[in-house]
Amino acid sequence: MRMVDLIEKKRDGEPLTKQEIRFIINGYVKGDIPDYQMSAWAMAVFFRGMSLEETAELTLSMANSGDKLDLSTLGGRFVDKHSTGGVGDKTTLLLGPMVAACGVPVAKMSGRGLGHTGGTIDKLSSIPGFRVELEQDQFLSQVKKIGLAVISQTGNLVPADKKLYALRDVTGTVSSIPLIASSVMSKKIAAGAQGIVLDVKYGSGAFMKTVEDARKLARTMVDIGKALGRQTIAVLSNMSQPLGRAVGNSLEVLEVADALQGKGPKDLMDVCFELGAWMLVAGDSVANVGEGKKCLRHSIETGAAWKKFLAFVSEQGGDAEAVASRRLNIAPWNLPILASESGYVQPFDAHKIGILAMTLGAGRVTKESPIDLGTGVMLVKKAGEWVEAGEPILELYGSDKEKLAEGILLAKELVSVSSDGSELPSLIDEVIQ
Amino acid sequence: MRMVDLIEKKRDGEPLTKQEIRFIINGYVKGDIPDYQMSAWAMAVFFRGMSLEETAELTLSMANSGDKLDLSTLGGRFVDKHSTGGVGDKTTLLLGPMVAACGVPVAKMSGRGLGHTGGTIDKLSSIPGFRVELEQDQFLSQVKKIGLAVISQTGNLVPADKKLYALRDVTGTVSSIPLIASSVMSKKIAAGAQGIVLDVKYGSGAFMKTVEDARKLARTMVDIGKALGRQTIAVLSNMSQPLGRAVGNSLEVLEVADALQGKGPKDLMDVCFELGAWMLVAGDSVANVGEGKKCLRHSIETGAAWKKFLAFVSEQGGDAEAVASRRLNIAPWNLPILASESGYVQPFDAHKIGILAMTLGAGRVTKESPIDLGTGVMLVKKAGEWVEAGEPILELYGSDKEKLAEGILLAKELVSVSSDGSELPSLIDEVIQ
Repeated sequence: MRMVDLIEKKRDGEPLTKQEIRFIINGYVKGDIPDYQMSAWAMAVFFRGMSLEETAELTLSMANSGDKLDLSTLGGRFVDKHSTGGVGDKTTLLLGPMVAACGVPVAKMSGRGLGHTGGTIDKLSSIPGFRVELEQDQFLSQVKKIGLAVISQTGNLVPADKKLYALRDVTGTVSSIPLIASSVMSKKIAAGAQGIVLDVKYGSGAFMKTVEDARKLARTMVDIGKALGRQTIAVLSNMSQPLGRAVGNSLEVLEVADALQGKGPKDLMDVCFELGAWMLVAGDSVANVGEGKKCLRHSIETGAAWKKFLAFVSEQGGDAEAVASRRLNIAPWNLPILASESGYVQPFDAHKIGILAMTLGAGRVTKESPIDLGTGVMLVKKAGEWVEAGEPILELYGSDKEKLAEGILLAKELVSVSSDGSELPSLIDEVIQ
Repeated sequence: MRMVDLIEKKRDGEPLTKQEIRFIINGYVKGDIPDYQMSAWAMAVFFRGMSLEETAELTLSMANSGDKLDLSTLGGRFVDKHSTGGVGDKTTLLLGPMVAACGVPVAKMSGRGLGHTGGTIDKLSSIPGFRVELEQDQFLSQVKKIGLAVISQTGNLVPADKKLYALRDVTGTVSSIPLIASSVMSKKIAAGAQGIVLDVKYGSGAFMKTVEDARKLARTMVDIGKALGRQTIAVLSNMSQPLGRAVGNSLEVLEVADALQGKGPKDLMDVCFELGAWMLVAGDSVANVGEGKKCLRHSIETGAAWKKFLAFVSEQGGDAEAVASRRLNIAPWNLPILASESGYVQPFDAHKIGILAMTLGAGRVTKESPIDLGTGVMLVKKAGEWVEAGEPILELYGSDKEKLAEGILLAKELVSVSSDGSELPSLIDEVIQ
């Protein structure tokens, strides 16, 4: 088999066989197939797409390309959740303790963020002492003990995806649905998931800009999961507005703490109840989504989820007391952006809010950039809320005056008020299973 | 400017500016742009194509990427000819002396062949003593002296094309019309051509399989030439049958010697008269194609072209006497493939004749393969000619028994006779200018 022939086959729209896809992935990981052939192939996939059979085999070949996590010792069905990412997305931090409090264990490997804002691991790193790296046996024994552990991606999990993703990033081949879908699903499968709940966001703050694209991606991932024998459910949600009020690592952890104590913003809670309920369904812990939501609400009302979160922080070496008393490292300067007139706050461009937070220091420009964990943006008012002239709409948190000045210029362009107070569309659009 | 943005721009069907195309070619030649980005870009070009403005700029950027030949010292208009290549194509060897005998100088850089059969340089190498490498001043002074020199591509001419072609060859991005057209035209322009005559072949033995594709390629090259101020004419010809009777390096040189002495096969002579006449027109030596053909016929009838060829061979160190007395190195074994019944010889598959010649040793499987110059195939009968049962249709020339045995098996499948003697379509289809 020669790679150039397989590139031409895909280029000409002919489907590749399972054997051919395995040849490509194995050859690429071993270094027999060079980057320049792989990128030409990825561009051909961008234009020609892939059938479900091809995409499922690509997912499996990538999942098999390195180590795989064996969660069978945990007992029961192990459920994982994946979010396609968005501005102010702290759902993993909320769902972990809520779902664990309802009896379904959460053993999660998460990534660091690139662009916009930090990832889950960056957010956890803003808790003093929190260790995001655990050995595999520590990780599993913690899940056994308290039902919850979240660590940074470790070991040689899905090396094919690591290598291919880095290549796609610089060759204009990121936005291909079969390549995105197989990248996400291969990691869930290598991480041992039996049930998978996907949080697929769309809108200006999300990777998928339109609901149609998000639906296609969700359908592809659900079909891959089914083809590979994993119960998979996708929830489409609108990310045209940031989720919650906090954007930035420490700020988001504080918002999570509030939310677990019953003071969470409605949009954030709605998304978490929906996703969490499906996780409980996939984990065979409840019979339907309604029961799942009831259980999750109960975990908040009784304080069980909040206690679980504090236990989780302590287990991983973090200062739970600092979280409970809101003593996290927050940037020293706090500048409000005020309303110049009274009216209803108009919808923000979530993407631009993300860029604003990154400008203040909350996100990475390149993989190597450090993150200033205490910086970010608070949405004092969210879209559709009334503001009086002179009241703050946003608050910027920064520790570098130059960046703050740049942030103010960006922020001024972001806010507007109007007499139009029409309601925002619902956040959750549909569930694909 | 970032290459990844330019890949995405092309991928999304937006035209690239002149500045962007220059950035790509210069960056690639300097090594700032890696192969894996260039191959993804080439695949995007394969799918999206390029406008005339883009293709002309690509051609110019490539032509400017290295040394350029200055032929102004030769005086007059300098005309170059390019063939897209085909099985048994020895037109350059015939046209050189014919056109030079009619007063238009021919200063040609030619390539070695890959696949099928040898290139012009390989064919010339079968003449004992012939030097295919000359210093630039030797090359030019020979053209001044006798009006004709043919050498192997030398110096750092169009390094962008060398690098990009090698990459395209292994990434499934060869068959893209703007990439083929800019590759051909950049070399002609760097080699100093003011007029360009293109021999664009199509059919099973050619690179372009259909007349439509050949027409598109011809149109693109003629338009590039015009856009860059070079008079450019393309002649489309049918390569479904090999040109002439000889396929293989020494065998073709002998056929050229015969043809220059008035004993050339009609199809070969027709193509040469047409192409040569356009070269004379482009060289301002005759007023029209009719006059050009008359001059070329005269050069054969008077022996002027044959004398010019012998002088050319001598000037470049070759043994003209060996050519004149047919003492070239021909492979020791000569096996005829006989007709099993009487009838009209059916059309050959030119591509398969090429593969047969390569199998016998006349072509390169990889860039590094040696060529066995004395091997090849003679078409004793051409398609449409009558053959008696037991008479030879083909003759195979080989020096390796195993390869000959393999050749015989291929050849048996290639020949057939029938009572149907319908005429073959005309060779020359149209002229695009």
